Amino acid sequence: MGMVGGGPGAFIGEVHRKAARMDGQVEFVGGAFDINPRKSKQMGKELNLNPKRVYKDYKEMIVKELQLPDGERMDFVTVCTPNNWHFSIAKDLLDVGFHVMCEKPMTLTTKEARELVKIVKKTRRVFGLMHNYTGYPMVKLARDMVNNGEIGKVRKIVVQYPQGWLATALEKTGQQQASWRTDPKQSGASGCGGDIGTHAENLAEYITGLKMTHLCAELTAFVKGRKLDDDANCLVKYNNGARGVLHASQVSVGEENNLAIWVYGEKGGLEWHQEHPNYLSVKPIGQPTQVWKRGNDYVTSYSQAAGRATRLPSGHPEAFFEAMANIYLNFTDTVKARMMRVKPDSLVLDFPDVHDGLRGMLFLETLVTSAKSKQKWTKFKK
Amino acid sequence: MGMVGGGPGAFIGEVHRKAARMDGQVEFVGGAFDINPRKSKQMGKELNLNPKRVYKDYKEMIVKELQLPDGERMDFVTVCTPNNWHFSIAKDLLDVGFHVMCEKPMTLTTKEARELVKIVKKTRRVFGLMHNYTGYPMVKLARDMVNNGEIGKVRKIVVQYPQGWLATALEKTGQQQASWRTDPKQSGASGCGGDIGTHAENLAEYITGLKMTHLCAELTAFVKGRKLDDDANCLVKYNNGARGVLHASQVSVGEENNLAIWVYGEKGGLEWHQEHPNYLSVKPIGQPTQVWKRGNDYVTSYSQAAGRATRLPSGHPEAFFEAMANIYLNFTDTVKARMMRVKPDSLVLDFPDVHDGLRGMLFLETLVTSAKSKQKWTKFKK
Amino acid sequence: MGMVGGGPGAFIGEVHRKAARMDGQVEFVGGAFDINPRKSKQMGKELNLNPKRVYKDYKEMIVKELQLPDGERMDFVTVCTPNNWHFSIAKDLLDVGFHVMCEKPMTLTTKEARELVKIVKKTRRVFGLMHNYTGYPMVKLARDMVNNGEIGKVRKIVVQYPQGWLATALEKTGQQQASWRTDPKQSGASGCGGDIGTHAENLAEYITGLKMTHLCAELTAFVKGRKLDDDANCLVKYNNGARGVLHASQVSVGEENNLAIWVYGEKGGLEWHQEHPNYLSVKPIGQPTQVWKRGNDYVTSYSQAAGRATRLPSGHPEAFFEAMANIYLNFTDTVKARMMRVKPDSLVLDFPDVHDGLRGMLFLETLVTSAKSKQKWTKFKK
Amino acid sequence: MGMVGGGPGAFIGEVHRKAARMDGQVEFVGGAFDINPRKSKQMGKELNLNPKRVYKDYKEMIVKELQLPDGERMDFVTVCTPNNWHFSIAKDLLDVGFHVMCEKPMTLTTKEARELVKIVKKTRRVFGLMHNYTGYPMVKLARDMVNNGEIGKVRKIVVQYPQGWLATALEKTGQQQASWRTDPKQSGASGCGGDIGTHAENLAEYITGLKMTHLCAELTAFVKGRKLDDDANCLVKYNNGARGVLHASQVSVGEENNLAIWVYGEKGGLEWHQEHPNYLSVKPIGQPTQVWKRGNDYVTSYSQAAGRATRLPSGHPEAFFEAMANIYLNFTDTVKARMMRVKPDSLVLDFPDVHDGLRGMLFLETLVTSAKSKQKWTKFKK
Repeated sequence: MGMVGGGPGAFIGEVHRKAARMDGQVEFVGGAFDINPRKSKQMGKELNLNPKRVYKDYKEMIVKELQLPDGERMDFVTVCTPNNWHFSIAKDLLDVGFHVMCEKPMTLTTKEARELVKIVKKTRRVFGLMHNYTGYPMVKLARDMVNNGEIGKVRKIVVQYPQGWLATALEKTGQQQASWRTDPKQSGASGCGGDIGTHAENLAEYITGLKMTHLCAELTAFVKGRKLDDDANCLVKYNNGARGVLHASQVSVGEENNLAIWVYGEKGGLEWHQEHPNYLSVKPIGQPTQVWKRGNDYVTSYSQAAGRATRLPSGHPEAFFEAMANIYLNFTDTVKARMMRVKPDSLVLDFPDVHDGLRGMLFLETLVTSAKSKQKWTKFKK
Repeated sequence: MGMVGGGPGAFIGEVHRKAARMDGQVEFVGGAFDINPRKSKQMGKELNLNPKRVYKDYKEMIVKELQLPDGERMDFVTVCTPNNWHFSIAKDLLDVGFHVMCEKPMTLTTKEARELVKIVKKTRRVFGLMHNYTGYPMVKLARDMVNNGEIGKVRKIVVQYPQGWLATALEKTGQQQASWRTDPKQSGASGCGGDIGTHAENLAEYITGLKMTHLCAELTAFVKGRKLDDDANCLVKYNNGARGVLHASQVSVGEENNLAIWVYGEKGGLEWHQEHPNYLSVKPIGQPTQVWKRGNDYVTSYSQAAGRATRLPSGHPEAFFEAMANIYLNFTDTVKARMMRVKPDSLVLDFPDVHDGLRGMLFLETLVTSAKSKQKWTKFKK
Repeated sequence: MGMVGGGPGAFIGEVHRKAARMDGQVEFVGGAFDINPRKSKQMGKELNLNPKRVYKDYKEMIVKELQLPDGERMDFVTVCTPNNWHFSIAKDLLDVGFHVMCEKPMTLTTKEARELVKIVKKTRRVFGLMHNYTGYPMVKLARDMVNNGEIGKVRKIVVQYPQGWLATALEKTGQQQASWRTDPKQSGASGCGGDIGTHAENLAEYITGLKMTHLCAELTAFVKGRKLDDDANCLVKYNNGARGVLHASQVSVGEENNLAIWVYGEKGGLEWHQEHPNYLSVKPIGQPTQVWKRGNDYVTSYSQAAGRATRLPSGHPEAFFEAMANIYLNFTDTVKARMMRVKPDSLVLDFPDVHDGLRGMLFLETLVTSAKSKQKWTKFKK
Repeated sequence: MGMVGGGPGAFIGEVHRKAARMDGQVEFVGGAFDINPRKSKQMGKELNLNPKRVYKDYKEMIVKELQLPDGERMDFVTVCTPNNWHFSIAKDLLDVGFHVMCEKPMTLTTKEARELVKIVKKTRRVFGLMHNYTGYPMVKLARDMVNNGEIGKVRKIVVQYPQGWLATALEKTGQQQASWRTDPKQSGASGCGGDIGTHAENLAEYITGLKMTHLCAELTAFVKGRKLDDDANCLVKYNNGARGVLHASQVSVGEENNLAIWVYGEKGGLEWHQEHPNYLSVKPIGQPTQVWKRGNDYVTSYSQAAGRATRLPSGHPEAFFEAMANIYLNFTDTVKARMMRVKPDSLVLDFPDVHDGLRGMLFLETLVTSAKSKQKWTKFKK
């Protein structure tokens, strides 16, 4: 495993490294960690990496790694730079044969996203997108329950992602996370929508198997001087006729990372909260609410995917790192299968990929278009 | 106290009677309980009322009660019929001098609502509207906190009211509650919006002191054959620039009466859930979340209104009846003050009135107009 | 209904009056409210009572009420004085034919309690004891579930009743509630044990149908100068071999009225919290936890007793007053049946009586004896 | 890092490996994983270890590792065998110079524990004991708050550890976890007390800084044929005069791993639940309850120890693995300091050691003695 991005002051790079390493199947060997070569080197030292494999930029990394023999060379590279770099780096990596794990949102534009779909198809490389929240076992259980018809036809979906950390002009203090996320050049056309709205979209589509078809969106930048939206509220239509609400925010003071979803079908309801990820509320019509708890036999026997994503017995809580590790587990098992030229089974293929990345970009495109429109509904492009 | 409506099979009539009686200041003396005189008589018997004061219809009630001497005559009458009767009954009662407590929504149309505002003004009678959820002490505390600037300028409001009891075609089974609520003639132009959406609107405006100015609404009837919407989702603009989401539903399986609100300001957030009414979460920016619990000195010393609305010490839970009793308490104290020709203080005047009723009707009008419109935003009429 | 006690500054008297009145079947006509006749009169005024029926003491009340004709005379009297008065007042009332509702603990000593059992038997009057927490519908559901074998043979019971209101020497400030409760002459041999420990004992025995046989207790007075214990911790043996813990406290800062119980059987567990009384957690072995919610058909069809104790639909929370009103409902229906010389059915007889009162006193006697003993186990006397 | 124990079918061995590896500072190189050499080899293969460093038993491991040059040799060894092996293995490792991380309970007897204290002192090796629950950041925050006097003098401590997984005779099905834990030869004199009771003891003493001085205990084996207790209930006295309850169970059906603690002082209360480890409830007297949430500045600025134990921002939940990784982090930093002959600061030394292990054994000894005694209180030996 190598990495582009994730240098000093970055948040998600170290999280990727820890998550990838969790199951002891992945060795982290090097990377190009910062646009500033000196900072990249510094990061390499902190990580006790072989200095030869700490590169001044990703282009050097590609050249040098390709000179290494098979088996020694990085098998895959994680891209966790600001959004504007995702496309070109991923493209370059795929073109020369690396498998790629990429942060979301996948690209800056739907055009890039469509091109990346083609590149992945052409190069036959494995491409993973880090929508980590679908790595939680109870999210997989929820998906299997909906798929098995436990709650009947889905009618309504409420999905939310409120945060409060950008309630003040944090970007003006030089805080690195805030700075690039509020800069349209690095972040894209939507701030709150791109950073967290896409997670909400991905979660809703993953659990229900439905696709959003129309949005009616309102984007607001509440903090004075901020160039990108920090609050997003949408009405949503889904392809089976279901209706929904999606709201996300970075100025909801007191909220931390409160991604949550409620799915209502004709025969039951489901409810899941990211901050309490080990529990899924299941509400069959006319019966007591059930709380399904991760790690129990009744979970793992119902959902193989949830079972595979579980490392600890019930009551021993698992959390964010493990969810991300689950994405890596399936991604790397798929990489291995590709390297051994075998076909991975569907349990292994259960990780977000380039198609999910395109969905995310279509969501963002529709979101921004709708926010500017006086018409109520804006349809997703094909 | 007398009553029109609330006969056999009704739900809310008995709740009114219990709530009004709670503090021992109100004597329930009679009424016209059902459009079917036989059923009205039957109800009177069940309630051990003097049969002379159980009337075949409200018109007879008015005539006969007016013949009784002052002090014996009903001082006020509660109207809890289906919505279509509210206006004419309230009007007739006010015109001859009764004070009136009315169920919501106040009328069928904004035109009626505007007329009722004039009638109340002209007759100088006390008119209360049973938006019972603003009777909860912790709702009053929340209002006082916003008003005192604890959370700074309000930016975003999420208010929800999901229920699941109409997820099937209950009205076809003859269930009385379901039947009239899904009938446009008795219920008005919106089902879910009128029955519970107005509560959400009222709660948001009560707590924040803001007014909604624009809606972007989607109304859906999910149950086959149902004539009125059973699900409502809206984007909202408020008069200070705040944005919000309001969603309500009668088909959210597994939900019971889950009215809840999240208010986010520049300096803090508030969160309250009707099903756990004794608690208010207060989230000052950069500090631990606080859980304020009803009945404590720190609540009653902060908010006189919450203190006045409290009957039990902390930890001894209060609930739905007490909230409604609080509306009655202030309403009847205002009636008493009017009868004694004194001016009640603002704590006593803290109950929903004809102006709140008009707001509710404007909300419904805007909701229904927006739902039919292709434009994103529909403005409230003046 | 009449009352002895419940004068100015009392807490529970007004709660009794509100609860008794809730269902509109009980008329509150008078009483002797305070040991100070002037205060008793004052209370009568506040309650708008006929001054003729506000008495200077309970002896006068008895004499005068007996002079009134049947039907006008108080049918029953509620005794809510400090504990030291319970026995003599209840005895005098029963002896001359009144039915009695009494606050707990029933008496000061087990000797008095045994005598009261005999008096009730002899006089054939209806005697109710206000262990209000068994009036909650979900407590009745829990009892029915245990009784139906849903959780198998009970093995372990944890019951707690932590409060924090006496964490400082409140009694020295003149606060009336604190003063008599910490005075051995008025309160009895145990402070915390008598005031709230008995509720915990009653709840555990009510739900499980088991009897405590042995206690191993530690009583502590943490606040300097306090004469009675303000903290009680016990190990418990039950008559079927079950083991348990019971702990109660008045110095647990931050706790309000946190009575809660966990019952573990061979096939399942139950959990209930007084501060969230509308929910019962049911935990069948090897299955998801279920949350049963008051007011649903699945509750009322399972438990007739829970159904009878329910006034509002699910999601419309009920609380403390309603639980107490349920005790009154069954008590007064039993009084009516006795007056009409019919036999009430077992649903109606479901209220705490003189035998529960004796159990409570035996619990207190064992508690205090054990606390003084160096032996581990102290057996309940017969 | 090497390991003794943690072979096929073991639970905690893999958890140790993942936790130790989390921060990328520890390389896992080999071990003796099972008393059956074939199974040890098998485990080595599964873990992709160098077969040369997978040993047939720990004695071979010691011999062979000592032949390796410094820097290549294992720096420390984790012992996670059944309890009966802990002492002799740890002793042998320490004697030849390895640092040791050991599972709890530390030994089978207090005699062994006292000897181990001496050995550690004499050999000057670093000895860590895996009381992982004190690795949680919010536990560290709680300790710092008590230590800073936030809640005043501690009066009462309730600590519980209910589980339900041994509610049936699981050991008879051949389940490995259940088998050794219910076997006195492998597990020691107490089943439930040793496996989980010691965690409760350790947590209470860690947070409050107090020592238990007396126990009054009841141990029960509820499952027929079980040789060791599966349920433990105790009254506790602490060295400052505080009182408490400690109860633990393996037959509490529906409970998973519900370790929780409530500490009540003169000025406030604290509450923490292992299954929701990111939150600490803080209850200052007379003020709203505060919920402190891991990862916020107000936590890390209050408690350096909590800050050091935090890897993710607030709202991104951390859980069991991270808590254990925190124990490893401090343990391995201490090992490094020892190797570099520098003195680690107190933040680094914050991990359970041989003295905590002795406390645990004294707790168990007192527990078992008390359970057999007819006297109420049994004093801890020095």
